[in-house]
Amino acid sequence: MRTAFYISDGTAITSEVFGHALLSLFPMEFEHVTIPFVETVDKAEEVKKQINLTAKRSGEKPFVFHTFVTPETREIIDSSDAVIYNFLEHFVNPVEQELGITAKPKSHRTHSIHENSYDYRIDAVNFALANDDGSKVTDYEHADVILVGVSRSGKTPTSLYLALQYGIKAANYPFTDDDMDDVALPEFLKKHKKKLFGLTIEPLRLREIRDGRMANSKYSSSRQCRMEVREVEKLYKKERIPYINTTSFSVEEISAKIISEAGLQRYKY
Amino acid sequence: MRTAFYISDGTAITSEVFGHALLSLFPMEFEHVTIPFVETVDKAEEVKKQINLTAKRSGEKPFVFHTFVTPETREIIDSSDAVIYNFLEHFVNPVEQELGITAKPKSHRTHSIHENSYDYRIDAVNFALANDDGSKVTDYEHADVILVGVSRSGKTPTSLYLALQYGIKAANYPFTDDDMDDVALPEFLKKHKKKLFGLTIEPLRLREIRDGRMANSKYSSSRQCRMEVREVEKLYKKERIPYINTTSFSVEEISAKIISEAGLQRYKY
Repeated sequence: MRTAFYISDGTAITSEVFGHALLSLFPMEFEHVTIPFVETVDKAEEVKKQINLTAKRSGEKPFVFHTFVTPETREIIDSSDAVIYNFLEHFVNPVEQELGITAKPKSHRTHSIHENSYDYRIDAVNFALANDDGSKVTDYEHADVILVGVSRSGKTPTSLYLALQYGIKAANYPFTDDDMDDVALPEFLKKHKKKLFGLTIEPLRLREIRDGRMANSKYSSSRQCRMEVREVEKLYKKERIPYINTTSFSVEEISAKIISEAGLQRYKY
Repeated sequence: MRTAFYISDGTAITSEVFGHALLSLFPMEFEHVTIPFVETVDKAEEVKKQINLTAKRSGEKPFVFHTFVTPETREIIDSSDAVIYNFLEHFVNPVEQELGITAKPKSHRTHSIHENSYDYRIDAVNFALANDDGSKVTDYEHADVILVGVSRSGKTPTSLYLALQYGIKAANYPFTDDDMDDVALPEFLKKHKKKLFGLTIEPLRLREIRDGRMANSKYSSSRQCRMEVREVEKLYKKERIPYINTTSFSVEEISAKIISEAGLQRYKY
């Protein structure tokens, strides 16, 4: 199998996203190796050896995706026995010409604590945890969004993703079996109705997920799952709460849709 | 201020990472606008109007970073009054030649639920929550890593990031004031010593963070912060627990370092 290296003097997250997006266009499997924090010439030489050994063993040049800024380390990696893709290089000149200014590369530009947004994100994580699963319903005035939905419809991972990636304060509140006789918005949600965003899910998929946690229970029965989803969707429609069906979406996709549809302000770019 | 658009038929995360990495090389502020899920010709036409309006109002062509796959929508965006950067386009040909196969673009290639790693990640989030802050110490055999450290040294956000981004099951356990007379590893940690990874932090920064939560308490006093950090670092050295100082690192950087130093297996690329 061909090996793809993602290398950087920082986290290598940019190289990974870039390389992964590119390779995902090809119907082929790769062996992925990430090497972050290649900050010294010694470390770069060591990585070069590893790349060359991989080339020798496999008889195929590995792919190397990198985003080095300092020339000393970059040149060492560039001289290894590999196919090198440095996507920044290709685009720096056109952008310089367009902006009429010169690039001033510095290390740890992205994904570091020096981003302005950093404290927002940690605060938002703490907020999401404190306001997870209806554990606290008295602090919704500080929420940017309040996710509602039945148990296991994706509220918690989405709240955490919104917080960690974007610094958005997301509370979440579950509608449980006890609410189902007459699902209505409790007063503490009604007060913040504009912040509500509903999640829903196919009853079959919900059953599968709940079964993994509590097999053969009422909670995971087809009947219960169908009923809860039906009642909750009825409520969303009645109260005109925007909602999305999470069944076939990842947490990244759900989050991107919520940000876009609810017009949320993000604290990280 | 110049506007940068990040546009895609998916989450637009790839366009954002690409555009952000490129623009961060330039000492200049930008107005950022992300538009995900541009999946239809109608939506693309609407976005084109928005771009053209921005160009007209500001008198400057906006930057557009996109990763469209379907030609119908891409051509509409490409025809707007903007500077277009499509980084995939530049690299597809070289990779095709290198691999000797043709690219087969499909939508939602990355950041979607169709990635194999998806269930791992959601399981890992549930694991991190259930094993947060020492709330459960009986399930460490299922942990990939156990983060230890004093309160507010970064354990929880790091555990959640490792889970959400990489599907790594990270438990975390706090050393508290009660442990400080004679800091030692409790039996349930000793059993899993190889999984331990320590976090530490500058006492001054720790004090600042704790003060934000509980001002003028013993917990946030300089003396207490210095003492806790000193005792815990002593323990790391005595027990040869690998550790990092989180003071000047982001959660992305801390996570990348832990993965790399602890040799953790990731479930997402």
